[in-house]
Amino acid sequence: MNILQNINSPADLRALPVDKLPALAGQIREFLVDNISRTGGHLAPSLGTVELTLALHYCYDTPDDKIVWDVGHQAYTHKIVTGRREAFHTIRQHGGLSGFPRISESPYDSFSVGHASTSISAALGLALGRDILGESHSVVAVIGDGSMGGGLAFEGLNNLGASKTAMTVVLNDNEMSISKNVGALSRYFTRVLTDKRYNKLKDYVWNLLGDRTSVGKGLRDVIRSVDGGIKHIIIPGKFFEDMGLRYFGPIDGHNFADLLDVFKFIKGQSRGPALVHVVTKKGKGYPHAEKNRTKFHGVSKFTPETGDLVDGGQKKPTYSSVFGKAMVELGGIEKNLVAITAAMPDGTGLSEFRDAFPERFFDVGIAESHAVTFAAGLALKGLKPVVAIYSSFLQRAYDQVMQDVALDGTNVIFCIDRAGLVGDDGPTHHGIFDISYLNTVPGAVIMAPKDEKELRDMMFTAVKYGGGPVFIRYPRGTGRGAPVDNEFEAIEISSPKTVKRGTEIALISIGDMYDDALEVHELLAAQNISAALIDARFAKPLSVDFYKKIFSKYPLIATFENNTLCGGFGSSILSLSSQLNRQTRILCFGLPDKFISHGDVAKIRAELGLTPDDIAKKIRAELKTTVKK
Amino acid sequence: MNILQNINSPADLRALPVDKLPALAGQIREFLVDNISRTGGHLAPSLGTVELTLALHYCYDTPDDKIVWDVGHQAYTHKIVTGRREAFHTIRQHGGLSGFPRISESPYDSFSVGHASTSISAALGLALGRDILGESHSVVAVIGDGSMGGGLAFEGLNNLGASKTAMTVVLNDNEMSISKNVGALSRYFTRVLTDKRYNKLKDYVWNLLGDRTSVGKGLRDVIRSVDGGIKHIIIPGKFFEDMGLRYFGPIDGHNFADLLDVFKFIKGQSRGPALVHVVTKKGKGYPHAEKNRTKFHGVSKFTPETGDLVDGGQKKPTYSSVFGKAMVELGGIEKNLVAITAAMPDGTGLSEFRDAFPERFFDVGIAESHAVTFAAGLALKGLKPVVAIYSSFLQRAYDQVMQDVALDGTNVIFCIDRAGLVGDDGPTHHGIFDISYLNTVPGAVIMAPKDEKELRDMMFTAVKYGGGPVFIRYPRGTGRGAPVDNEFEAIEISSPKTVKRGTEIALISIGDMYDDALEVHELLAAQNISAALIDARFAKPLSVDFYKKIFSKYPLIATFENNTLCGGFGSSILSLSSQLNRQTRILCFGLPDKFISHGDVAKIRAELGLTPDDIAKKIRAELKTTVKK
Repeated sequence: MNILQNINSPADLRALPVDKLPALAGQIREFLVDNISRTGGHLAPSLGTVELTLALHYCYDTPDDKIVWDVGHQAYTHKIVTGRREAFHTIRQHGGLSGFPRISESPYDSFSVGHASTSISAALGLALGRDILGESHSVVAVIGDGSMGGGLAFEGLNNLGASKTAMTVVLNDNEMSISKNVGALSRYFTRVLTDKRYNKLKDYVWNLLGDRTSVGKGLRDVIRSVDGGIKHIIIPGKFFEDMGLRYFGPIDGHNFADLLDVFKFIKGQSRGPALVHVVTKKGKGYPHAEKNRTKFHGVSKFTPETGDLVDGGQKKPTYSSVFGKAMVELGGIEKNLVAITAAMPDGTGLSEFRDAFPERFFDVGIAESHAVTFAAGLALKGLKPVVAIYSSFLQRAYDQVMQDVALDGTNVIFCIDRAGLVGDDGPTHHGIFDISYLNTVPGAVIMAPKDEKELRDMMFTAVKYGGGPVFIRYPRGTGRGAPVDNEFEAIEISSPKTVKRGTEIALISIGDMYDDALEVHELLAAQNISAALIDARFAKPLSVDFYKKIFSKYPLIATFENNTLCGGFGSSILSLSSQLNRQTRILCFGLPDKFISHGDVAKIRAELGLTPDDIAKKIRAELKTTVKK
Repeated sequence: MNILQNINSPADLRALPVDKLPALAGQIREFLVDNISRTGGHLAPSLGTVELTLALHYCYDTPDDKIVWDVGHQAYTHKIVTGRREAFHTIRQHGGLSGFPRISESPYDSFSVGHASTSISAALGLALGRDILGESHSVVAVIGDGSMGGGLAFEGLNNLGASKTAMTVVLNDNEMSISKNVGALSRYFTRVLTDKRYNKLKDYVWNLLGDRTSVGKGLRDVIRSVDGGIKHIIIPGKFFEDMGLRYFGPIDGHNFADLLDVFKFIKGQSRGPALVHVVTKKGKGYPHAEKNRTKFHGVSKFTPETGDLVDGGQKKPTYSSVFGKAMVELGGIEKNLVAITAAMPDGTGLSEFRDAFPERFFDVGIAESHAVTFAAGLALKGLKPVVAIYSSFLQRAYDQVMQDVALDGTNVIFCIDRAGLVGDDGPTHHGIFDISYLNTVPGAVIMAPKDEKELRDMMFTAVKYGGGPVFIRYPRGTGRGAPVDNEFEAIEISSPKTVKRGTEIALISIGDMYDDALEVHELLAAQNISAALIDARFAKPLSVDFYKKIFSKYPLIATFENNTLCGGFGSSILSLSSQLNRQTRILCFGLPDKFISHGDVAKIRAELGLTPDDIAKKIRAELKTTVKK
């Protein structure tokens, strides 16, 4: 019997007898594997939380009760049972469902997410807001053990624990976020779960606590048997009790009876902050995902039977892998090179460097702010740290970039992956602000390569530079297929490269927009318009000499960037032109001042009127006007 | 005998016999009170750390051994004993010593600071860098209990605890950072210190641990006597032990013998991460500061004998106090208004609101990122949160502003104090980037009032708005003395105000730069130059209709802003002019693309060539050129 097809809302779910839930969980897993094999998506996290999600919606009166998912990777089951089953095949597609909870998508999505560690803070806002308004619904935040290591989660926990509000944090402990977890807190969780002495002691002590008068010789003996004496007694969840939360757990996150028990108990009590420590298995129920949780964390299309990725015919290497290989080469040349990632050794391409130079590799967990300040410390000792980070996550460390690195001109290199539109992950992951916010940083050198070779050369240039922080931004996915076996060549700081000469207009592109500029160049050439094509390479500092000549030579300039136009590359060119008192007409092509939805990048660009055709058309129109004047 | 006058470096200090240290501490306190009474500065934090600082430099071989001070408020003694005694009277003055450790100022300053919670991350970078280089010096981070509640400190601790490196964190626990501390962790510290049952147990258990065979009836009895059974035993520093650090403490931070013992022991061992929990009294040794620690946290000039502030003749209210009073008024009108501060109820002017509406006031501690995400949660429940925050600290929450507030157009109001140059605190506290980084935020409304009345009206406007996030930025200190008893008036979003009409040039100022623009206007008028004067009020969104007219009417425009020129207000005006294809010549006056030192704001502006005289001169020169063309 297909139960799932009748579940159109949590009310349908709550009408089921408890004994149907395991069958439903099985059907959801099949549904997930079937759908995600065809669309790609965050499969393993969602497979791990099927029972947890069902138990939450079964016990809590959603959407009146609020569930806040941290990051949102794990919320597919939530989408399926909250009226989005039939639309689920559109997930992450242009015009379809978002891959993350979005309050604009469903009343069941209490908070829009994408970046880690926000759930406790957001849920605390909902809970204290509820208290002020005199309402009485429940608020639950669901957060993974990886996200719990982020500073924002700690700030939330620290404030929650000091409050008296009724709110529940579900710690979804699968002992890995995206890669294997790091950090002392994560080790602590593992110790709580695995220490046999502790488990024995716990059962014993807990029994004793029920009947205090029997405390006696037995307890004494247990305590004596604990290695290192009383000092090392691990009291379960003591960490959280110290933080002011009642601790429940550890609980098997795939056992409905246990999950329903604890949630019903806590909901019934409705008092103070509580933490439920749930242990789940990432990828649960799909053997290929259980075996390779990193691969199936976020996966592209695959064959369900074999777990093999569907070959997209992709032969060119990604920018991440070009970066990764170059890091290994540079690590061999430069003995002081060290690499830092915030929980993304695979995503950023650093895993080869990690294997080659383990003592020079640091995965700091989901802690971007720390990654940057830590890198500054390493640099002050004379090492050459490279922080490999996604553009949208570097937003987490804007202040640290400014204060801990740039203030002293400290030599930290930032290799910023996923810069520009990223596609399926949408607005929380598009890296379209970095040129702008980094442009405010005094002394910053900001580069963007037009192709893979230039990325390598820019990395080499950054390692040799030594004049302060360097930022190199490059996009998600593959490049132009430029050769990547070249010897490294240093690039003069601030020097653009004129690729094609022309007379009527200068097309100036930064980074991966070079391809579009080239296509525009061809479209213009086809109409006998002579355009120069310039690979800007540097968004900051701009070469005054170079651009002065450009401003003098061309009555019209077009800039191309994969970044917001607000304060971006084009804006810098405009400012320089104004400072130099040049009257050159400048057209800036870049992303508009709005959040951009998820989906195929080509479709997004078409929707925004930013195809080479669109741009060439605008340039031709402008050339007519400019000539007229 | 004056010992202090012979202490010109830590080597001199280390040559002293231990029994001279208390006398030296007394002399340093006199020196501090005497100097700070004449310059102003962070007195109370530094008075609390005199013995701690001396003990550290006495035990550790600075500068080879590295001491990293968190925030740096408390590092005055450190400056005095590291060769800066004679320059100390210049502290925070233009051209003088910085109020914070700066690596450019002294080899004893291992990290430049100003913002909270960075020390553990930075020190961990120094420590792991040392390990890679095969060196063996010690690394010590000194962090207050307030800063320990910041997410970055937790990220650092989480990474330190997972490492095996020899590094020491000194937790300087004075039970308050700037205001009374908040948060569960802070309560935990207090509980550790004050629980008599715990202290009794601790002594007993610690003695037992020395001789494990004697564990027996006595221990059992103690355990039985603890309220709530074993579950509530507080093991000292268990929190930190769980985080992977060896815990030492609590230690009396004014007792040299105890301090020297523990530091010598840890330095001698040189293994693994350790935490020393030191209890100090903020303001120690100066009764006025002990009594009023908030007032003497950061103090202006005062009379040492009475502790009374020297009356600067200042009669106008500060922007902070105008904001604070308006909040109380608005809180009466708008029952859903709530206020949030990150450990700055007094600094931001929120203390009156706290007293009037305690249930609608939230001090979240030093946790800016949480403050913003928490505010988003409150807003999603239908409340109207106002986040009162300093400009440079909002940098800590750039990503939260973007993702947790702006992405859904959530109605959070940000009242951004200390925007623009702040003076004595210098580059870590100048709020000169906010227009630029907030300008990248889609849907943001950014306002800046020209005077106190306009601040009130903008706050009212923001409360009534409801169309997404609103940012109101205003400077440190007093305004123009505009009346502040007016009825609130709503301002049309995006509407500038023409204050004076003119023909040859339009002077467009945003926020407090209005005064300078007005002065320039007068200087130009004196030379028969007819200038319009426009109070832009909005940095975003710009009124296309309004500025189109301006661009058409004036051949020359000058913009004035108390913000970096990179991506600032002038840059937005340039972009708009370019989009509208106007050839108006635009001169942008604002702060240059560099970090700006501390000191008197007028002196800084003179140094930067940004006095009204300088600007009027440039405009006159430009007018001649423009007219010629």
